[in-house]
Amino acid sequence: MTDPSLSDQPGHPALSHLRSDGSAHMVDVTGKSETKRVATAQAVLRTRADVVAQIGDGSLPKGEALGTARVAGIMAAKQTSNLIPLCHPLPIGSVTVDFETSVDSVRILATVSTRGVTGVEMEALTAASVAALTLYDMIKAVDKLAVIEAIQVLEKSGGKSGDWARPSTGVSA
Amino acid sequence: MTDPSLSDQPGHPALSHLRSDGSAHMVDVTGKSETKRVATAQAVLRTRADVVAQIGDGSLPKGEALGTARVAGIMAAKQTSNLIPLCHPLPIGSVTVDFETSVDSVRILATVSTRGVTGVEMEALTAASVAALTLYDMIKAVDKLAVIEAIQVLEKSGGKSGDWARPSTGVSA
Amino acid sequence: MTDPSLSDQPGHPALSHLRSDGSAHMVDVTGKSETKRVATAQAVLRTRADVVAQIGDGSLPKGEALGTARVAGIMAAKQTSNLIPLCHPLPIGSVTVDFETSVDSVRILATVSTRGVTGVEMEALTAASVAALTLYDMIKAVDKLAVIEAIQVLEKSGGKSGDWARPSTGVSA
Amino acid sequence: MTDPSLSDQPGHPALSHLRSDGSAHMVDVTGKSETKRVATAQAVLRTRADVVAQIGDGSLPKGEALGTARVAGIMAAKQTSNLIPLCHPLPIGSVTVDFETSVDSVRILATVSTRGVTGVEMEALTAASVAALTLYDMIKAVDKLAVIEAIQVLEKSGGKSGDWARPSTGVSA
Amino acid sequence: MTDPSLSDQPGHPALSHLRSDGSAHMVDVTGKSETKRVATAQAVLRTRADVVAQIGDGSLPKGEALGTARVAGIMAAKQTSNLIPLCHPLPIGSVTVDFETSVDSVRILATVSTRGVTGVEMEALTAASVAALTLYDMIKAVDKLAVIEAIQVLEKSGGKSGDWARPSTGVSA
Amino acid sequence: MTDPSLSDQPGHPALSHLRSDGSAHMVDVTGKSETKRVATAQAVLRTRADVVAQIGDGSLPKGEALGTARVAGIMAAKQTSNLIPLCHPLPIGSVTVDFETSVDSVRILATVSTRGVTGVEMEALTAASVAALTLYDMIKAVDKLAVIEAIQVLEKSGGKSGDWARPSTGVSA
Repeated sequence: MTDPSLSDQPGHPALSHLRSDGSAHMVDVTGKSETKRVATAQAVLRTRADVVAQIGDGSLPKGEALGTARVAGIMAAKQTSNLIPLCHPLPIGSVTVDFETSVDSVRILATVSTRGVTGVEMEALTAASVAALTLYDMIKAVDKLAVIEAIQVLEKSGGKSGDWARPSTGVSA
Repeated sequence: MTDPSLSDQPGHPALSHLRSDGSAHMVDVTGKSETKRVATAQAVLRTRADVVAQIGDGSLPKGEALGTARVAGIMAAKQTSNLIPLCHPLPIGSVTVDFETSVDSVRILATVSTRGVTGVEMEALTAASVAALTLYDMIKAVDKLAVIEAIQVLEKSGGKSGDWARPSTGVSA
Repeated sequence: MTDPSLSDQPGHPALSHLRSDGSAHMVDVTGKSETKRVATAQAVLRTRADVVAQIGDGSLPKGEALGTARVAGIMAAKQTSNLIPLCHPLPIGSVTVDFETSVDSVRILATVSTRGVTGVEMEALTAASVAALTLYDMIKAVDKLAVIEAIQVLEKSGGKSGDWARPSTGVSA
Repeated sequence: MTDPSLSDQPGHPALSHLRSDGSAHMVDVTGKSETKRVATAQAVLRTRADVVAQIGDGSLPKGEALGTARVAGIMAAKQTSNLIPLCHPLPIGSVTVDFETSVDSVRILATVSTRGVTGVEMEALTAASVAALTLYDMIKAVDKLAVIEAIQVLEKSGGKSGDWARPSTGVSA
Repeated sequence: MTDPSLSDQPGHPALSHLRSDGSAHMVDVTGKSETKRVATAQAVLRTRADVVAQIGDGSLPKGEALGTARVAGIMAAKQTSNLIPLCHPLPIGSVTVDFETSVDSVRILATVSTRGVTGVEMEALTAASVAALTLYDMIKAVDKLAVIEAIQVLEKSGGKSGDWARPSTGVSA
Repeated sequence: MTDPSLSDQPGHPALSHLRSDGSAHMVDVTGKSETKRVATAQAVLRTRADVVAQIGDGSLPKGEALGTARVAGIMAAKQTSNLIPLCHPLPIGSVTVDFETSVDSVRILATVSTRGVTGVEMEALTAASVAALTLYDMIKAVDKLAVIEAIQVLEKSGGKSGDWARPSTGVSA
């Protein structure tokens, strides 16, 4: 019996068809309209106070950390659809990566915009995550116990679902 | 004497010009109009009946084969213009990869759509080919003689040349 | 005055040299010995109970989530040195990605091994992070508030620093 | 109950563990010894006699086909572990891509060597496949019905399994 | 005190903010209009007369040089936004790479077009540079002293700044 | 008649063989011994004095230039074998990128080391070139006439050919 999910394909009868309804696929976005879309996401690197100080004064063994992590995050945003299997490639319009330090943590904020057919949450999350992993790489010689926390979308705008901001909670750093 | 093929370039006389008329190049698609385009392609992995059974029941040494091949095919569709030198990058709108098994073969069907200026045959063929290679990789420990066959476009729609479907023949699996 | 950090380079006097001592660089590992090295890292995706149920029964809009995230994590491990600027390329010897679900979270465990000159913590962290981002991508249509937490190294072995395991705390999921 | 497949990981009790024994993974090759390994694979592009003539005389719309396909195949060999999820990265030692034409087909032969811990069949198959797809891309304007056939390993040497050559059959072009 | 540069982001007070006004970022191009844009750039490989002869007659140890460099340049144009951190991904519409030889040099001319929101100077420069590096790679066994010179934009058209051509000087090869 | 260059391949008679002796190929390095190898290369960006000042004080429209170019150069070194078709992948052991400024130019110095079977000249040249292209990208809004010059190897050590340094000339910046 032919799988109805293949009914738009040429008439080769399926002898034994393995597609389940739940198989992974890139959903069709060709009918969606292009609008400006923006998303901001964060990640938080939790470490020790002396390590945050070293990040700030450039004395880490691998060198200047924040500028390196910023470039890594920007470049990672452009790799999102190559890393996340079901993400669509998008014409990324801008990327910024910023840092806020507290006593024992660094918060990474990534904002991505596009004029495209899908949102850019995954691009912002990927930029923040890779920037955080880059910071981790630069401090791991001095802190084996660092943790990356609270990777989440903070707000987004554009598209069918409109503007959205994460309700305030105590979750973020 | 200046090569006329360079006549749109600044006036630096060519002392000895090596471009032949037949040199490879990415043809200009900037004047083509964006329309929805879809293509379906296939590849067939021919192996043994017991291997097809192992693909189905997940008992291969490297683990679950079809889901892995599906993801590989989807991701490969997005790499097409990085693998095929003269392909244009396209905003891929959807990718599906499906499998049909017969006694001693697995047929891979890949469908790709875009809203773009060129067709997506190469993307569909690349998805089907890489999914087939991934299956091959997972069975090669149990079948050195497997063969990938019948990689071809089955149908396409959109663009100047309009809808097209491969005439029925005995070629496919 | 010549920057002493350039003293091993040919004798071109620096008119005005911009390298600060703290500039980023890939540290030299050519003198380190090859040993087997293994690292395990985790990430935790916190969401809702009904979403964890959908992950389990394959009813998400984009399809089967865990198998897709596993493949994404494995492939990301191999991209680590392309994503993290100061990471060294390594001959990755194995990658596994596993999942544990609780009521409202999914914990991703990634283990990477190599026979190489540096540790594979970053590869394990990258695999876990990208697998978590892939899960996020698959549930974001049903949960805008999901958070990725507790990305950390759990244990590692091999290399000069020897075996290490994270002390038990209440940090992990 | 803890999944025994995780017994080498830190003692976090699995609340509900989703790993089945059949999950996909990159198998561990860190214990294998480095030896010289070589593999030769083929792909066959079946088209029309007039198209083979155009391939030969450089009159295709996109330009010189064989040289372009050769470079594409060589570069694809180096992307194998980025395309095939469970392939290990290998220090590729050489790649050659050659062509044989008959009346209505072009046979691509790719040979890859390494001094590494796993065989290079997948690298040779990937090189042959991508070279064939590149030829297809260059002729698709003049032949919609072309088919890529008979992708298979012809012979390999090195490694535990020793030398092997495909038994002669009528399968190849 | 909150950095005003973050004023468009959710209200999380910055404890200690590290962003300086001069931090690197991908500037926002989402408001720019799509027009056809073209750019031509060059690079010059300076070597010896006998090496230019070997390039021409295909007798170099690694084989045919110009066709290989042409394909490398075309493929590199498509990698520009992955190599240059702050470049935007663009739908590249065409790429040509041509060569002119004089007695002791090879001049590479790369022309790239797009229908997009930013210019393609970087794509043309990247194509020319990578084609020149590829030639260098193929001759380095016979000339250690080769130099790549005069990488520059020759002309561009399209976009807000309109048409532009480099004033004639003695700079180019 | 069979092409002798294929004599090491299975006995399929070539009906019409297209390989010329001069075809491009990755030469075999599997028999070469691993030694430590180091190479230093340079590129020079020639611009205006006021632009060099802007590079130094971080007032360019796209932000901090030298740190961004350094990271781009380091990451590009790891992409060398993906950009240059006949380059072998190498386990890069270290990369440094430094800058020297004069009145109207910036000289980029890139040093790469490996413990491998081939030299790292191409990696050092690629790092220097991409760092220079990145600087170009950041200043092109203020200087359309900038030129990248004098890309060359300065010295190398290791391997069969031993240590080598470029003879002093007036060529470099």
